[in-house]
Amino acid sequence: MKASLAKGTRDFLPGEVKRRDYIFNTIEKVFKKYGFDKIETPAIENLQTLTGKYGDEGDQLLFKVLNNGDFLKKADKNALEAMDSNALAPSISKRGLRYDLTVPFSRFVVMNQQHINLPFKRYQIQPVWRGDRPQKGRYQEFYQCDVDVIGTDSLLCEAELCLIYDEVFTALKLDVDIRINNRKILMGMAEILNAADRVTDLTVTIDKLDKIGLDGVEKILLNDGFIQEQVDKLKDLLSIKSLEELKEYENSSEALAKGISELEEIFFYLENQTIHQNLIFDVSLARGLDYYTGMIIEVVGHDTDYGSLGGGGRYDDLTAVFGLKNVSGVGISFGAARIYDSLNELNLFPEDIEEKKDALIITMDKESLKYGFELVQKLRADNYRVDIFPDNRNFGRQMRFADKEGVKYAILIGSNEIKEGKVTLKDMSSGEEKKLTTEELSTLLENNVK
Amino acid sequence: MKASLAKGTRDFLPGEVKRRDYIFNTIEKVFKKYGFDKIETPAIENLQTLTGKYGDEGDQLLFKVLNNGDFLKKADKNALEAMDSNALAPSISKRGLRYDLTVPFSRFVVMNQQHINLPFKRYQIQPVWRGDRPQKGRYQEFYQCDVDVIGTDSLLCEAELCLIYDEVFTALKLDVDIRINNRKILMGMAEILNAADRVTDLTVTIDKLDKIGLDGVEKILLNDGFIQEQVDKLKDLLSIKSLEELKEYENSSEALAKGISELEEIFFYLENQTIHQNLIFDVSLARGLDYYTGMIIEVVGHDTDYGSLGGGGRYDDLTAVFGLKNVSGVGISFGAARIYDSLNELNLFPEDIEEKKDALIITMDKESLKYGFELVQKLRADNYRVDIFPDNRNFGRQMRFADKEGVKYAILIGSNEIKEGKVTLKDMSSGEEKKLTTEELSTLLENNVK
Repeated sequence: MKASLAKGTRDFLPGEVKRRDYIFNTIEKVFKKYGFDKIETPAIENLQTLTGKYGDEGDQLLFKVLNNGDFLKKADKNALEAMDSNALAPSISKRGLRYDLTVPFSRFVVMNQQHINLPFKRYQIQPVWRGDRPQKGRYQEFYQCDVDVIGTDSLLCEAELCLIYDEVFTALKLDVDIRINNRKILMGMAEILNAADRVTDLTVTIDKLDKIGLDGVEKILLNDGFIQEQVDKLKDLLSIKSLEELKEYENSSEALAKGISELEEIFFYLENQTIHQNLIFDVSLARGLDYYTGMIIEVVGHDTDYGSLGGGGRYDDLTAVFGLKNVSGVGISFGAARIYDSLNELNLFPEDIEEKKDALIITMDKESLKYGFELVQKLRADNYRVDIFPDNRNFGRQMRFADKEGVKYAILIGSNEIKEGKVTLKDMSSGEEKKLTTEELSTLLENNVK
Repeated sequence: MKASLAKGTRDFLPGEVKRRDYIFNTIEKVFKKYGFDKIETPAIENLQTLTGKYGDEGDQLLFKVLNNGDFLKKADKNALEAMDSNALAPSISKRGLRYDLTVPFSRFVVMNQQHINLPFKRYQIQPVWRGDRPQKGRYQEFYQCDVDVIGTDSLLCEAELCLIYDEVFTALKLDVDIRINNRKILMGMAEILNAADRVTDLTVTIDKLDKIGLDGVEKILLNDGFIQEQVDKLKDLLSIKSLEELKEYENSSEALAKGISELEEIFFYLENQTIHQNLIFDVSLARGLDYYTGMIIEVVGHDTDYGSLGGGGRYDDLTAVFGLKNVSGVGISFGAARIYDSLNELNLFPEDIEEKKDALIITMDKESLKYGFELVQKLRADNYRVDIFPDNRNFGRQMRFADKEGVKYAILIGSNEIKEGKVTLKDMSSGEEKKLTTEELSTLLENNVK
């Protein structure tokens, strides 16, 4: 049998795990500092929890788990006869893999009301699954990294999330723009265009601005039945660069005024805070997801071209579908894979990320293997990254391994060394050898590898 | 819609994640110290990778993922007509969820030969899925925690894994027996009983000894066609307490002699090592899994009754099925859920595991919220676990939240406090209040919470 990976999945080699964990650890440290707690939800959810939450397209991309046992027994006979896969699926598959972390989180909040205090600050770093067509750098199984406050509509949470973005990307040494806007401003713009009933179409189209430019947006809107006057007005609005400028329209729409005042309150809370990145109001920021109702936020790298490195916003009533009403939340998420690619491209991972071993002990026989085993334990107890090659039958193989692993030193032990109570230290780059007592070895390691 | 969890799955609340991560972090620290590298494999594997590796029962317990799109198009027509679920499954489901970490690891080694150096020391901490009937404390989705060396038959690896068990359980403050035996000894025992061809039956039955006792073993074996003489001989053998005693049979079986000499070599390497737990030879240790070929090992708690807290052994040729022959490996695994329950029962989790916040800032209006936000950032920068309630509209609600969260102090800020440049500190247990400057507050926190 030929070994193969399932379509759209990948293995993580040690070096990849270390780089990815560096990102996760950096993010997690900031989350904890801001008082967020980690939770986990299962990979498998009932399909009724997931279905209908991500639009028709999303439903198609859900991974469905076949019912255990004799699943055909309860299969929908009509669907079978009609050979209708879509109609058959619900009767042979009750469960699926989570598609994002937000919907399971909403379910979690509703089911664990007695165990959590609102407002509840939580983060989650777990994989999700989507049956998208795999592309270079895009997988069907990938990690999401979400942080949310749920159970309060205070705009201080938005301010806090801005600082979290700032602190994480600064810690990662990535220069980014943190763009913010408000869905109420987009609603207001729709009202100003006399198209309040078409705010979703407008939002979805404006969301494409980065990719297709103003001309592209104009073309789509005209095609969708908007008239030239509306499109021109929109272009005026999208050229606005500051909240002050936008305020001129405040009287034309209550929603717009509310959106502006919310953003002003966020900036008010941030006034005296230290911010390292470029935090800017961007009237053209739209965000695709339908459930946002207030502030929206997106992070874009300065020096790379991977699109959004993170995004989020305020949502109202995500838990309502599970029976818990009037719960407002706000959250952001980090695009771990794109951050990974950005750090790689810009060479921003720490130099010692591979944590190469400092030395490898190489032995000649069973006695020296035992002697080396005792030495390696002593050095490990002192926190040196030292290992011992477990097999003494082939000196050349041991040296080649030391070389491939990139260790600084090989520590050679044979019967002579044991007799003298010493080890032979070989510098792997210079090839130089010298005999040392174990105390001298400790001193040398201390001076050279820490 | 009523919020519900999928059958056999669970959520992890913050306190549960913290306790579980305490276990994982303790284990991971030891793995790293011994030079093991973390890898990850995808949750989803091709079913042809998984099927046939876990016996018929295991195959039935595999979670199968329904093919995306119009899966009926390629469905097996005959199986459909016969309404045969088992026969239909392969044609509508190509992929499944991993059942353990060992088989995916074997696939990983074969597929990543160019990227790793043998011997390869890796660990993996990831969830697996099994369609077992859920029971109290047993789930269909649960974490496994495996550490293996692959690509060498050196018994030093066995010795190292014994030390890893010793170090992890000692760090967790759990008193355990670490029992070791060798599959070659079991083979030898079968030979001594003139039942070499029935070694698997024997192994499987002896494996039940802990649960059903010697009488139970006798009953099964007699029922299975063993004769009384064989059973009596086996009972003699199982009563042996030391390698020395067992050596009397050395000449009766080459396999037995080899098994004994392997264990002696392992004890030779461990002779001068510090071992805190009770490491013992146990001739009756069998381990259920079929693929073990050399040393086998199991950990059982002294003070709890959760059965095995971990186990493992030497296996040969696990990668052969994927086309890579003559690769020997040895590994152990930690039963995270049972360790969790043991630590809980014995009250062995660190006292401060919940990481409760030291103080909560409570404010009266928008101005004091902003002021408090600046203060909380200053205190967080100094590593205090301090948070601010984001909403200032209801003082009583804020105080109740502080109480429920179990913080030591509430820090009250209103217009008076801002005017005076002070905060009001309320000790949540005594109810005592005093006014402090922010410098005095820092000093107090430093003396009381670190």
